[in-house]
Formats: sequence, C-alpha cells, structure tokens
Amino acid sequence: MDDRGGCGARVNRSAVGALRESRGRSDRRAVRGDRHHRRGVLMTATLPLGVETLAHELVGAPGAPVILALGGISADRHVVSHPGDPTPGWWQGLAGPGRAFDLALRRVLGVTLRDGGCGPDGRPARIVTTHDQAASIVALLDELEIARLDTVIGASYGGMVALALAERWPERVGRLVVISAAHETNPMATALRVAQRQIVELGLATGRATESMAIARGVAMTTYRTAREFAERFDPAPAHLTTQAAEFEVERYIRRAGERFAERMPPARFLALSLSADLHRVVPERIAVRTTVIAAQGDTLVPPSQSRALARRLPRLDTFTILRTRFGHDAFLTEPARLGRVLATALAD
Amino acid sequence: MDDRGGCGARVNRSAVGALRESRGRSDRRAVRGDRHHRRGVLMTATLPLGVETLAHELVGAPGAPVILALGGISADRHVVSHPGDPTPGWWQGLAGPGRAFDLALRRVLGVTLRDGGCGPDGRPARIVTTHDQAASIVALLDELEIARLDTVIGASYGGMVALALAERWPERVGRLVVISAAHETNPMATALRVAQRQIVELGLATGRATESMAIARGVAMTTYRTAREFAERFDPAPAHLTTQAAEFEVERYIRRAGERFAERMPPARFLALSLSADLHRVVPERIAVRTTVIAAQGDTLVPPSQSRALARRLPRLDTFTILRTRFGHDAFLTEPARLGRVLATALAD
Repeated sequence: MDDRGGCGARVNRSAVGALRESRGRSDRRAVRGDRHHRRGVLMTATLPLGVETLAHELVGAPGAPVILALGGISADRHVVSHPGDPTPGWWQGLAGPGRAFDLALRRVLGVTLRDGGCGPDGRPARIVTTHDQAASIVALLDELEIARLDTVIGASYGGMVALALAERWPERVGRLVVISAAHETNPMATALRVAQRQIVELGLATGRATESMAIARGVAMTTYRTAREFAERFDPAPAHLTTQAAEFEVERYIRRAGERFAERMPPARFLALSLSADLHRVVPERIAVRTTVIAAQGDTLVPPSQSRALARRLPRLDTFTILRTRFGHDAFLTEPARLGRVLATALAD
Repeated sequence: MDDRGGCGARVNRSAVGALRESRGRSDRRAVRGDRHHRRGVLMTATLPLGVETLAHELVGAPGAPVILALGGISADRHVVSHPGDPTPGWWQGLAGPGRAFDLALRRVLGVTLRDGGCGPDGRPARIVTTHDQAASIVALLDELEIARLDTVIGASYGGMVALALAERWPERVGRLVVISAAHETNPMATALRVAQRQIVELGLATGRATESMAIARGVAMTTYRTAREFAERFDPAPAHLTTQAAEFEVERYIRRAGERFAERMPPARFLALSLSADLHRVVPERIAVRTTVIAAQGDTLVPPSQSRALARRLPRLDTFTILRTRFGHDAFLTEPARLGRVLATALAD
C-alpha cells in the first residue's frame, strides 16, 4: 500500500470508480433518478459536479415522499439495505415496516458527500463547507428532478449539512430533523479535531498516513461515546503488563476501531470533512423550515446545551428532545428504538 | 536539537544535572535535609535511589510541620518561590501568609517524581507505578530524617502518588488531601492517554519527537479544561481562512501550549508518567489515614462521581468537596482562592 499520502492509494465506498465497477445500474442514464426508477428499488448513480461527482442511492416506493438521510463523516450513500444491495446500510437500525425508513411508504435518498479533492501532498486540494455540500445536493436534486424533499434527516456532520441546506434552499426542504448537530461548532470539539488533523498531517509528512489515521480515529472515538459507557464496558486494569509496557482493554478497542477506519477513509477526505465540521456555521433565525432538534445525553462533541441554543433560535421549531442514553454522540447509531420513537412523531404529519 | 528520540536531547527542571549546575547548595551533604536546613529557607538536593535520583526542595520555617506537595506530570520540586529561588513555583497560588503554603508556619517539601529512565529508542526503560513513586518518597524521607509528614497534598498525578503513599506507608502520613485524583483511572481517561502515547511513539519512530509531543499535549489540554471555559474564551469562527486551510483561535492556543510543553518534557518521561497514571490503583478501604477529597466541577479526566466513589470508600474521610469552577481538571492550578478555602479547613486541626 502506498502510505506516503498518495491520493489514489485507498478508496472507500464513496469513490466513484468503485461504484461504477460494482453496480450494473450505475450508468450515465441512471442519473435521471425518478424517471428511471424501476420496481421501486434501486437508483444508484454518480453525478458529475464540475470536477466533483456526487454518488447516491435512491430507494423505496416509486413516487413516494423522499427522505434525504445524512450521517457522519464516515457515512456514505448506502443508508439502508435494499434488493440492489442487501448489505446493511449505516442507518439500518431505522429501516423496516413502521419505522422511519419504511421503503414501502417512503423513498430514502442517500448521498456520499464531497470532499476537497486530493493535492499532490495527500492533503485536501481545497476547503469544503457544509454549504458547498448543500449546493452539491441541490444540483443532484435538479438532476433527479426532485423539486422538494419531504424530509431531511441529518445526524452529526450530516446534521450540519442539513442545516446549511435548509438555510439556503428552504424551498427544497419540507421539514428538517437535526440530530447531534448545531448551528456552529464548539471550540472544544474544534480543539479535538485540530489535534486529529495534526496527527494525520504528521503521518502524511513521515510516510505513516495509515497509522496516523488510526490514531486520529482513536482520539475521535473518545468524543463519540461517554465516560460512563466506557467505564461499564472496559476494565481499568491492564489486560497485559510487562516491566516495559502495558496494554488496556480500552486501548485494544480504540486501536482496532482506528485501524478499521484507516482502511477505508483516505487521509485527504478525512482532513477535508473534519475541517468542514469546524467551519460550519448557520444563522438559526434564517432557517424558515419546520425543524425537530434532537440532542443526546452525554454528547461531548455537540453538548445538549448547544442543541438547545439552536432550538431556541429556530423560527419554526417543532420539538426539541434530549435522548436518554449512555452512548453520547453515537446515540443516533446505537439507539435506533429511542431515536425511532422521536422520529415517528416528527414524521407523523 | 536531536529529535530522533535520543534520551539526553532535552532536559527539564527535573533533570539532575541541571540542578547541580544551577544551585550551589545542591551538593551531596545537602541531602541530609533537616539537619542542614539554614535560615529556614532552602533545601535543594538530589538523592541517589539505585539508578534514579529524586530531586527535592524543602523550604519554610525550621522545625515546622512538613507538607509534601505533589502535582501533575509536568510539576517538579519547585512548588513555591523562596529566597533560594524567587521564581514562582507551579503551586505559587497557594503560597503566602495565611495560606496553605505559609513558609513562616510550615515547611513545604517538593519533589521531582521519577520516570522510567530512557531506553536507546527514546522510550521509557521501564514502567514506574505510583507505588514506585511513593517508595522513592519514603527513601527520601529517610534521608531527610523526616519520620512523619504532617500533610500530603496531591493533585492530579500527584494525588494518585499521595494515595499510594498513604496506602502503603500510613505511619509516614499525618493526613492526606487528594485533589482531582481517584483510586483508579477511568477507561475514558486511559483512552485519551493511550492516544497521546501513540502519537509520541509515532513521533519517536519518525524523527519527529518534539512535534509529536506538542500534538499529544494538545490532546491533553482538552482534558484539562471544560467545553464551557473554551466556549467563553475562543471564537468558534476561524481566525484565518484561505481556500486551502483554516486556523482557529483555539488551535493557536493548543499549538502554543503544546510547543511550550515539548520544549521542557522529554518524550520518555512523558510516556512513563502517562502510563503510570493509567496503571494507578489503590484500595480505598486500605487507606488508614485521615483524608480530604476534593473534586472539580466539570473535570472530564477525573469526574467528580469518581472522586465521590473514592470518598465513600475511605475509612477516615474528613470531608468531600466539589469545587465550583469552570476550569475542570485544571482548577487546582487556576482556582487558588477556592481551593485555599477548602485547604484551610483541611489543615485547621
């Protein structure tokens, strides 16, 4: 593996080439989303957007209302399983009859968000803001001839993009659900992401990109869960101990999670999306769309107090809910039942 | 500067050679602490302990009760200013008439804690536990002919060492004050320190030890303060922005703080003390010494709930106090007035 920051070294689901190879329907014509929708199932495509292309999946009942689902920086267009790709999607827990992503009643649109391209040094070629992401989504909606999304549900980084979309293109969004995201990033979250970017930059500069990505992800993992959950799960005593070194259960966990992440996320993409989260800013008073705000108890990355501040400033707040959870920021992935109950209310009318 | 992990490259206050050069009284005879104490002021020495030496300062009124003051991993023996060294000590905020460290009424003993030595690869030669630190302190007390410390006040890593000392050598400790430390480390704190050690190991392996130390310290800085304090201090908007990069106020802060730390802390010492904190464990029920436990509101490294758990299990708890603060873990350094009021009660009888 090229580990010196080469841009093409590793490619994840989001990479356009891989999509073209793996999916027969991903031809140029399939871009015309709605019209080419067959058997109510699959719409996979790539869409040229200047130098960028935005991969997506549109699945579910033909003609049904469209929910755009946006997740964290490691999320992609494969939100839920469907006949064209029966592997579990990253938000599979919300899929199924009677749930938010009921493909018999709704269509679910997933996108692989943009990154900043890759410069010769393995770093992002340019900054990508959450408003840039929103503009790419609007271009995709134009191509798909979707005039208006019924609902945009965004969590974590996807929640920031959802807010940017609703702020600038309110006519394209019927209603908004924002989970564990706010109108701006708190400086503590920025500090933690700055440190992660510094680690990856050190890795790129020294030919240790993969190792540095794993370490940076390890730091990120501490912000995705809570101290309480870690305390319940991991023994504080070392699992292995010699006179020179020790290893802890929690150490094995964050090392493994970091290594898995490093295998599928190119450094330039990580750097671009991490910075994008820190640059995110919308003015809540300018969001003219009905909005449900959901925070997670113990979320250190987006504290519930910040979600509450967002909710208070929104002109058309539907509800503000704090999910009871021990998972913190990750609750949007690990608490599908609790989240589903809140979403059922949000999607009811 | 040798930045490839060489052990002698950088030397901080704790290094023995520097002490010998800078202080005329640091000769071998000065080791005999109490007896050679002159004009109630200064006692600086190094003490051979096998391959290790433990540097210390003993200052204050001759014959007065001795308070041992132990701080975080970057603390050293210079706790408060005195005529022999008028520069501010790391716990200067507690010094002065009527305060905890009133050199007219008490003597203050500061030590530079051990590390694990330095192997040829720049990594620690061996593990050092908080009980090892306590054993070195006891050996120093024997040399100084101090049969019993009036009080041991330990904060952060020093609080762990204080607990280890009181657990194993209760006859040497009159009373104990433990600030922002507990009987064991919570796995979230371990995860954050593991990531810091991984960063430094990457730096040692790639000839970027100083840079990696600065990054690791940046991660640590996020655990020393609170999100609230960062939010009050730093603008979330970027201070500098181009199409390729951005820089935030909080980024400048943690970069600068990291660089300052990297200048004075050798990587091997940092790795040893960081791991020592994770390996720390005492059994509260075995601590037969009167103890005051102080936690800091918003401390993410040692949550107040963990300090409370310690307090509940201590056989001879004097008081348990949660300091009201926006500074979190760093409150023991940044809230001298509030801490001083609690200490006044603890030291009153």
